[in-house]
Amino acid sequence: MIQPQAFQDIAPTHCYGCGSLNEHGHQFKSHWDPDTEKMICRWQPKPYQKAGPDIVYGGLIASLIDCQCGVMAPAAVYLQEGRPFGDAPYPLTVTANLNIDYRAPLPLDVEAYSECWLESFEGRKLTLACTVSHGDTLCAKGTALYIKLDQP
Amino acid sequence: MIQPQAFQDIAPTHCYGCGSLNEHGHQFKSHWDPDTEKMICRWQPKPYQKAGPDIVYGGLIASLIDCQCGVMAPAAVYLQEGRPFGDAPYPLTVTANLNIDYRAPLPLDVEAYSECWLESFEGRKLTLACTVSHGDTLCAKGTALYIKLDQP
Repeated sequence: MIQPQAFQDIAPTHCYGCGSLNEHGHQFKSHWDPDTEKMICRWQPKPYQKAGPDIVYGGLIASLIDCQCGVMAPAAVYLQEGRPFGDAPYPLTVTANLNIDYRAPLPLDVEAYSECWLESFEGRKLTLACTVSHGDTLCAKGTALYIKLDQP
Repeated sequence: MIQPQAFQDIAPTHCYGCGSLNEHGHQFKSHWDPDTEKMICRWQPKPYQKAGPDIVYGGLIASLIDCQCGVMAPAAVYLQEGRPFGDAPYPLTVTANLNIDYRAPLPLDVEAYSECWLESFEGRKLTLACTVSHGDTLCAKGTALYIKLDQP
């Protein structure tokens, strides 16, 4: 069953994209599905978050994908270390690469659905994949390379 | 000499990233340098637009790169067609791919500097490149594939 509490509320940060402690941010919320081992995010764009008429701004789709990968990466570290989500210290990871294919416009007036999962974890390198869709339409697919940092 | 008026003010849109008509947006401003044939953007992040302490949120760096490419693409169409920037109809282009290498953290308290240029324009495909730096430090480099659309 998908966790009812968002990862960002279990492990709060100040991230402008998804930190629950950042009142000015987008507050994307990602929920862990232990059955599929994916992060699930449902997101309703605001009417002004547009590129052209009626379609969502691509930089915000990139932001959603960056944040989904940005919580999947520490979640993967927690899982590898056998620690529960939210356990201190919070695993530090950084984005090295973000590569997004835009397949179809994402309409402004629908709820977007995103899935993110770990593709590989080798040494310090985590490769993640993320989709953004609505209904049966795949709007964007991203891959990201994250690097696990040593705890200070 | 770099154009004093931003491309977004010559050709205003409602884009959430850089449209001068979008009061809720980031309002990135890109200035054309005819000598180097680059779009130049200087941008001061707000204190809350952070990823971790004191560094800028990566999704916003992706947004800046998307917007720089998103004005360089129509500018390239204007140049190819021998029309002045802002001439109607506004050239329609869409992002097909955005690929960003994050090289170094971008500090929150400095002005970021970005250059964007056209690498190739073949048929309907425009390949663009964009850097984001501060001082001598290259923080991110992106490439983007844009597709020129037919006017409706």
